[in-house]
Amino acid sequence: MEFKLSRIGKMTFHSRTPSGHDVIVDTNRDFGGNESAATPMELVIVALMGCTAMDVASILEKMKVEGYEMEISAKSEKSSEHPKQYTWIELTFSFEGDSLPEEKIRKAVDLSQEKYCSVSAMLKKSTDLSYRILVGNEEI
Amino acid sequence: MEFKLSRIGKMTFHSRTPSGHDVIVDTNRDFGGNESAATPMELVIVALMGCTAMDVASILEKMKVEGYEMEISAKSEKSSEHPKQYTWIELTFSFEGDSLPEEKIRKAVDLSQEKYCSVSAMLKKSTDLSYRILVGNEEI
Repeated sequence: MEFKLSRIGKMTFHSRTPSGHDVIVDTNRDFGGNESAATPMELVIVALMGCTAMDVASILEKMKVEGYEMEISAKSEKSSEHPKQYTWIELTFSFEGDSLPEEKIRKAVDLSQEKYCSVSAMLKKSTDLSYRILVGNEEI
Repeated sequence: MEFKLSRIGKMTFHSRTPSGHDVIVDTNRDFGGNESAATPMELVIVALMGCTAMDVASILEKMKVEGYEMEISAKSEKSSEHPKQYTWIELTFSFEGDSLPEEKIRKAVDLSQEKYCSVSAMLKKSTDLSYRILVGNEEI
């Protein structure tokens, strides 16, 4: 169960994950890249959003909450000095649907962010990770 | 410059990064996924490998080291308890080529791992991150 990564361009790399999927990473032209794929630091935030989204969907299913749409957005800032890590990341969870149970939605997001989401748990140790929840454009 | 993520399947999500690239995440059937793409936790390690690979390629270019092939592999273990974060990650940097300058290669990898790689810097705060360097199958 190993990850492999090899070079397919100046700053373009192909990786194969243990689950057998291919992921390409690339970077900005300023850094010699070809801008053909997401950057490594972008993948960190995609991983974060994907991880918490799966938790929330799974918890809401257990709570029998249905008929909602969920979108997650993220804003962030990086340090200007090396290593250029994220100094903060803010996630916004947006739910749309009729008569959504706000309390259950808050509980599901809190459980993911405070207990289950592995990527959040890892990133919290190095960055200021915060989140907001919107239900039909109203912050709850 | 926002990241967006939306649901395209039970546990399948589509994200769009600020650089305009699409990344799909999915998960194992055991967790209700469709196994159509890398998992969020896999993307964390892909990000790590991609980040350090770009650094090393860039530093070796500045050092005028040419004519090498580099592959990176990674092994890891996750906690069995929630949140199931990585307890350790080991990277192996493998170089192939004729008469490669081992000292420069070591310096380039050390600089990435100790100074430049943003993903490594973030992950080190939450996991035991180690690395090995092989030049033509010999550990240096």
